Amino acid sequence: MNGADLLIQKLADAGVTACFANPGTSEMQLVAALDKEPRIRAVLGLFEGVVTGAADGFGRMTDTPALTLLHLGPGYANGIANLHNASRARVPVLNMIGDHATHHLELDAPLTSDIKGLTAAVCSWTGTSTSADDLAEVGLQAWQESLAYPGQVTAFVAPANHAWDPTRADVQVPEIPSPNKCSDKQISEAAEALMSGRATALFMGGHALREEGLHHAGRVAEATGARLISETFFTRQSRGAGRVETERLPYFGEMAAEHLQNLDTLVFVGTKPPVSFFAYPEKPGWLSPDTANLIRLGDASVDTIDALKRLADALGASPQVSNVAQHMTHELAQGPITAVELGKVIANRLPEGAIVSDEGATNGLGAFLMTNNAAPHDWLTLTGGAIGQGLPLALGAAVACPERKVLALEADGSAMYTVQSLWTMVRENLDVTVLILNNGSYAILNIELARVGVEHPGPTALSLLDLTNPAIQWTDIARGMGMTSQRVETVAELDTAMAHAMSEQGPRLIEVML
Amino acid sequence: MNGADLLIQKLADAGVTACFANPGTSEMQLVAALDKEPRIRAVLGLFEGVVTGAADGFGRMTDTPALTLLHLGPGYANGIANLHNASRARVPVLNMIGDHATHHLELDAPLTSDIKGLTAAVCSWTGTSTSADDLAEVGLQAWQESLAYPGQVTAFVAPANHAWDPTRADVQVPEIPSPNKCSDKQISEAAEALMSGRATALFMGGHALREEGLHHAGRVAEATGARLISETFFTRQSRGAGRVETERLPYFGEMAAEHLQNLDTLVFVGTKPPVSFFAYPEKPGWLSPDTANLIRLGDASVDTIDALKRLADALGASPQVSNVAQHMTHELAQGPITAVELGKVIANRLPEGAIVSDEGATNGLGAFLMTNNAAPHDWLTLTGGAIGQGLPLALGAAVACPERKVLALEADGSAMYTVQSLWTMVRENLDVTVLILNNGSYAILNIELARVGVEHPGPTALSLLDLTNPAIQWTDIARGMGMTSQRVETVAELDTAMAHAMSEQGPRLIEVML
Repeated sequence: MNGADLLIQKLADAGVTACFANPGTSEMQLVAALDKEPRIRAVLGLFEGVVTGAADGFGRMTDTPALTLLHLGPGYANGIANLHNASRARVPVLNMIGDHATHHLELDAPLTSDIKGLTAAVCSWTGTSTSADDLAEVGLQAWQESLAYPGQVTAFVAPANHAWDPTRADVQVPEIPSPNKCSDKQISEAAEALMSGRATALFMGGHALREEGLHHAGRVAEATGARLISETFFTRQSRGAGRVETERLPYFGEMAAEHLQNLDTLVFVGTKPPVSFFAYPEKPGWLSPDTANLIRLGDASVDTIDALKRLADALGASPQVSNVAQHMTHELAQGPITAVELGKVIANRLPEGAIVSDEGATNGLGAFLMTNNAAPHDWLTLTGGAIGQGLPLALGAAVACPERKVLALEADGSAMYTVQSLWTMVRENLDVTVLILNNGSYAILNIELARVGVEHPGPTALSLLDLTNPAIQWTDIARGMGMTSQRVETVAELDTAMAHAMSEQGPRLIEVML
Repeated sequence: MNGADLLIQKLADAGVTACFANPGTSEMQLVAALDKEPRIRAVLGLFEGVVTGAADGFGRMTDTPALTLLHLGPGYANGIANLHNASRARVPVLNMIGDHATHHLELDAPLTSDIKGLTAAVCSWTGTSTSADDLAEVGLQAWQESLAYPGQVTAFVAPANHAWDPTRADVQVPEIPSPNKCSDKQISEAAEALMSGRATALFMGGHALREEGLHHAGRVAEATGARLISETFFTRQSRGAGRVETERLPYFGEMAAEHLQNLDTLVFVGTKPPVSFFAYPEKPGWLSPDTANLIRLGDASVDTIDALKRLADALGASPQVSNVAQHMTHELAQGPITAVELGKVIANRLPEGAIVSDEGATNGLGAFLMTNNAAPHDWLTLTGGAIGQGLPLALGAAVACPERKVLALEADGSAMYTVQSLWTMVRENLDVTVLILNNGSYAILNIELARVGVEHPGPTALSLLDLTNPAIQWTDIARGMGMTSQRVETVAELDTAMAHAMSEQGPRLIEVML
């Protein structure tokens, strides 16, 4: 047995079941070890942004880390942007980064790079083995660290010789760390504030937006009259019929501040006070009212569902909630597709248990708003702002939940970033329907250009936001990667295509002309 | 005038003529400033790996830095792999990285990241402005540092408020740094070693492989009998009819060591002693003979063409060289396309002045070997081993040299990494012919798997190296990005397609089935 074999076996013992991979020469022993381990599904991505984004999607749906397999510093670097998103989402992801054999590093071969320098920016923990004997131990430590509640992005570096050298070491799988708990004093202070305030809200993120968290939040709301507000870019929210509804904080800072302006008390659970996504001249960055009482029910490491349950109990709330979303369908307006009609079609057609990966940018909001009363589903958003997340996230969610339909709502500009995802969806025959929302531009930037004070943009500025020259033909791109595809230009065409896609299994792409 | 306007104006004053860009909200003022500066061509890339690889290609052909425009830490991170290649190539690249307004950073908005932590791994120099008044100065300093001979990858961070705040500052364009020179003692020692050795070689990289460097190397070879050897992965080499020829060091370490084994004297110019690309169990990493006299004619900062000229003069070499490559054409063998026949077709059809971006991996070597006697041309290689370089490099070279034909030799696996390049080639109507060398696999890894000792790979291992399930249809992908494309399966078809592509202008893709 070599170091790689022991490592992969122990990670499988720990419960790792998926490895998203793009290996190179220095990782060939790790590939050979995966070959011998049937408990881990190895999934090839044709670019590392696909690999890391898929691990994020897997982690969001299972609360356990998928393994990634990345080729030295540059391979890891290609995955950083989606790891940034995963780290902002507090999702467990376990990166396995190959490196040169330790004796080879001093030779400064072309692929040599400062891997630990690169991981520091987004990984909460990075380890490096010192020999074949401790490679498995370091890998398990990274696994354990990734599970620090609610989840962290971690990494370990596996030098090639530690993978290929023989070892007789053994190592125990460490325990999964327990989340921290709020103190009773924090609970009673929050309860008191909610009781004494005139205009109060629970402001929620993280696991508070899971079904159980929402249930207890709904109890709190019914006991106190508090509004329930969710952060703008959340990791995963349970939505649709039967679920407690929340207001989602608007994206633009001034609208968000207005949304919160009448509140005198905000209790934050699973997140912190919101700030605007970007700074703008003369616009607010801090969004909570200056005069409000802001109470944070513990930091990110605190078990939010436990906190919400204890808060509801402390308030003497009924164990049941009566205000939950009712299922309803929307009447469609025929004609060209708008963001709202798109949303209605999705809402009507979404099957129970669907997972929506939303990187729809300017055209995603309509779908979000319209699906409040759809069948029960989970919604995933772009947590860190690094575009190119949506397709890989859908891929990883589909690997995690093979029995559930996955819908990727993808803005055209964002889709292009990690377009290679389509290929892996086909290869693994994943049940993902990709909706490309094709408006031929980085539309959000046309809005932002004005918001930062550029009032009369010229041709150069406009060209840098434009995707129509040439127009991207998404049906051709999908076909090039072996994916069934079609283009729809009217609401009726979209509805027919969605009805078909939701009733069939397997990967497909619908290019939605907006 | 705001900070962004002054910055962009001063960079144009310094001679910057191209900006490869993928901006976001925090860079909108920089976009507006580019709008007002007709001396800088702004080129949109749909992924940052395209942007940075294009800047590398531009720098290789002009020896001046193109500007990049990148969206905060994650946008920059997407460009790191190709900056790694540029940094290994010692090419000037000037990265302009937007960031949040300074007062926004403490709010830890979702896109906040440790930009300087990320740049440290591949940028030789990174600056950050402290106000609108010094943004231009910091940008110019990064520009100057990028020109430290033969070139460096540098970066500066432009916080959004320094871009939008007004300024009345002025700043001088700094001087371009001069390269260092070898000492006379170094020249005479190298000359003496070459005269006294029995089996000697000049081992060359960097600017030594430009036409003038090769000329002086040829003089040295004719005066001393020294072999001329070029490093395996060089930045840019002048080749073809009329040029002094070199032996290219083989890729695999044991073959490289064998290639050098009889030498008693090696003089290194513009590079350092070669090492194997990867480590392997029981195979050499250091490739020069243990007993050889190794002389380094200065480090990378030394003017290599000056060094070679002075060395040739010190040896009393004739000012002329007689041994240069003669133009010849190859007779084609008809039938299926092999690496060698591919190389012959390219050699026969390559027009004078062509630029070849070679990321052909296992199928690129035939083309390299066959083109020794083609029309004069420049050859660019994958300097840092981070795949996904070839298409962006071709793009940047074509922007730099609009009057020259550019040929991208692309392995299918590598092409997929930065496939978005095709779109920009079409948008800018660049004269690039892309040859996708489609063998349906990461073929090099099948070889490497055996070389690291994995003798009986199973289905999981083999599947991680395979690109045939599904088979990628490159003609469809090209069409999806607006590019003319065709597939060729025989030598005759390839020859016809190449004849057409070389005689016409504009972007096109030929999928070569191997």
